[in-house]
Amino acid sequence: METDLSFDDTSEILKGLLEEIRAKSAMTMGYPVSKDFDFSELLPFINYPLNNVGDPFIPSTYTVGSREQEKEVIGFFAELFRAEEDNWWGYVTNGGSEGNLYGLYLARELYPKAIVYYSEATHYSVQKNLHLLNMPNITIRSQESGEIDYDDLEKTISINRQVPVILLANIGTTMTEARDDVGKMKAIFKRLAIQHHYIHVDGALAGSYAAFIEPRPAFDFADGADSIAISGHKFFGTLIPCGMVIAKKNHRDRIARSIDYIGTMDTTISGSRNGHTPLFLWYVIKKLGIEGLRARTKKCLDVAAYAEKVLREVEPAVWRNPSALTVNIPKPGKALIAKWQLASGADWAHIICMPGMDKAQIDAFVKYLKESKIRTVALVD
Amino acid sequence: METDLSFDDTSEILKGLLEEIRAKSAMTMGYPVSKDFDFSELLPFINYPLNNVGDPFIPSTYTVGSREQEKEVIGFFAELFRAEEDNWWGYVTNGGSEGNLYGLYLARELYPKAIVYYSEATHYSVQKNLHLLNMPNITIRSQESGEIDYDDLEKTISINRQVPVILLANIGTTMTEARDDVGKMKAIFKRLAIQHHYIHVDGALAGSYAAFIEPRPAFDFADGADSIAISGHKFFGTLIPCGMVIAKKNHRDRIARSIDYIGTMDTTISGSRNGHTPLFLWYVIKKLGIEGLRARTKKCLDVAAYAEKVLREVEPAVWRNPSALTVNIPKPGKALIAKWQLASGADWAHIICMPGMDKAQIDAFVKYLKESKIRTVALVD
Repeated sequence: METDLSFDDTSEILKGLLEEIRAKSAMTMGYPVSKDFDFSELLPFINYPLNNVGDPFIPSTYTVGSREQEKEVIGFFAELFRAEEDNWWGYVTNGGSEGNLYGLYLARELYPKAIVYYSEATHYSVQKNLHLLNMPNITIRSQESGEIDYDDLEKTISINRQVPVILLANIGTTMTEARDDVGKMKAIFKRLAIQHHYIHVDGALAGSYAAFIEPRPAFDFADGADSIAISGHKFFGTLIPCGMVIAKKNHRDRIARSIDYIGTMDTTISGSRNGHTPLFLWYVIKKLGIEGLRARTKKCLDVAAYAEKVLREVEPAVWRNPSALTVNIPKPGKALIAKWQLASGADWAHIICMPGMDKAQIDAFVKYLKESKIRTVALVD
Repeated sequence: METDLSFDDTSEILKGLLEEIRAKSAMTMGYPVSKDFDFSELLPFINYPLNNVGDPFIPSTYTVGSREQEKEVIGFFAELFRAEEDNWWGYVTNGGSEGNLYGLYLARELYPKAIVYYSEATHYSVQKNLHLLNMPNITIRSQESGEIDYDDLEKTISINRQVPVILLANIGTTMTEARDDVGKMKAIFKRLAIQHHYIHVDGALAGSYAAFIEPRPAFDFADGADSIAISGHKFFGTLIPCGMVIAKKNHRDRIARSIDYIGTMDTTISGSRNGHTPLFLWYVIKKLGIEGLRARTKKCLDVAAYAEKVLREVEPAVWRNPSALTVNIPKPGKALIAKWQLASGADWAHIICMPGMDKAQIDAFVKYLKESKIRTVALVD
């Protein structure tokens, strides 16, 4: 790689990059990124080295940070996710992956001999996390929709009844935004008389708006979750990648004891922690409130329903899971995927109707798709 | 906790918080945070959802990010750390902790049966990482300075010669900024004929300026390191916590193969990755270059030497490791630690002369310390 870092063309390069980013940012249809929020009031904070080092609920001598706001954010979601009063804890992570790593780590500390079960539609980072944590695990079949196959799950658990069960439930799979039902998972525990169990909810995609969907999906603490991880840069559009993990406090207390020998109560995965992202999350919550977030969800669902309808006119195979923002499209050619930055698997691609996407953008995409289909008839893509 | 998120007092709260942060940010003497760089040219980027998802060296369909700058930054440090040509790889992490986690993960994948050795002066997050990774490990005694006790290390390795050796070397311990000597570690391997070994360098504190210290400490790839983790928000002052991990590419290729079954070449720990912090690092490198960074180091060392001198006039026990920015002070009272945000252990506290700290600040601190000593004679602190 040729890098010339001596000549000061910095400003020129930055100008070019900013232009490029502006243009490309307008064309991301396949990735779950909101682009509608004005955060300019927070920009002055970027000039200071905010760092919420360690556990947000334990004061630190380093006080340049946003611990109070972080605690409010965690409290807000603990309530939204119907955590038991005074039995919740959490922190703002660097993204969904870290939240899942934390939840699974917690589960391993509680049940070191457990097997972890998750559907084949689960995000690849979960397998990476399990590998990192050295946890035995079994992949369960998915239904066509992407939701876990409960029969396969029950059968597989039933032949491993001698060890505790850790389930990873997807609240919004990456490809089709399918939601596993935490209630049905708990019912399996009951039928098989499984005493030692843990459910971690990977809500990276849909966990942040699941509480506003009607009928409310079974995904939270009242439904049986032990920990929930969500993303901050998707539905909330924090611009800087982040997330949150919330867990039952009694679980976290056990982990705290188990690492007490290292003489610290730092129960987070990172040491130094971003102090800016909690401010972004706090800002969204303050500005929108519960009702604003509910309206934000409804608007997205409307756009998704519209997208499904008009896209199906071009591609009859287009489909969408109930109350999902993700619209699935038979995989188009490479050029189209690159131009619109679609996420794609082997046979399918999708668009995600995150806040900031509107019907006009959908129309532009549909128009392009239509024209590209006409071109494809004459020319192999 | 009482949280009222409905009433829109957002702007007022933010104004108050900004004031508080401004004031407190001026008083952090004990934490390794630089505060001297003007990043205003980068602020417009905060308005866009930059995300360098996955491996920086493998293109992604999501293109709103700073991959090119990230690759330049990694390339710059690979050269600075004397990596073998074309045999390096790395990425910008969320902080020193993630870099250490990555290095140790890499080591475990190469030598699953190894024992990890590290000194008792090692940052607690390393033990947290080892616990997470399920790696057997042994703590080695430290010398008074904080540097690892090589005799104890050699003796302990010699009675465990049947398994591979993973060493974690500190280039700047948290408390006294002691540097372990990677060359002496390699000599132990040679004397004991250890064939399977791995050295991960935790350079979170001093790794970013070690290359500019004379004589140059033994810490990099040419000295025998297999991977190096450094921080970005300390000496480089990126304001948002971040770091870097650089590893030999052939090691990383083996890890890539081992996780290939999950159908991705994503060899990073996080999935979504901050796209702003690589820009901050790139900006510092572009603005300062090698010579600027060397001068920056020299200036800090001068301030540290000054601080050691004037502080010793108040407290004769004050000391500093050779070419360290950390000045160690017998632990003062709680009020003083809180006021100046000193980091402290059982018996010692320290200040760190990071860029942005000047002699005037040292003088103010010394004056306060002197007066507080006089007060303490009359009044128990």
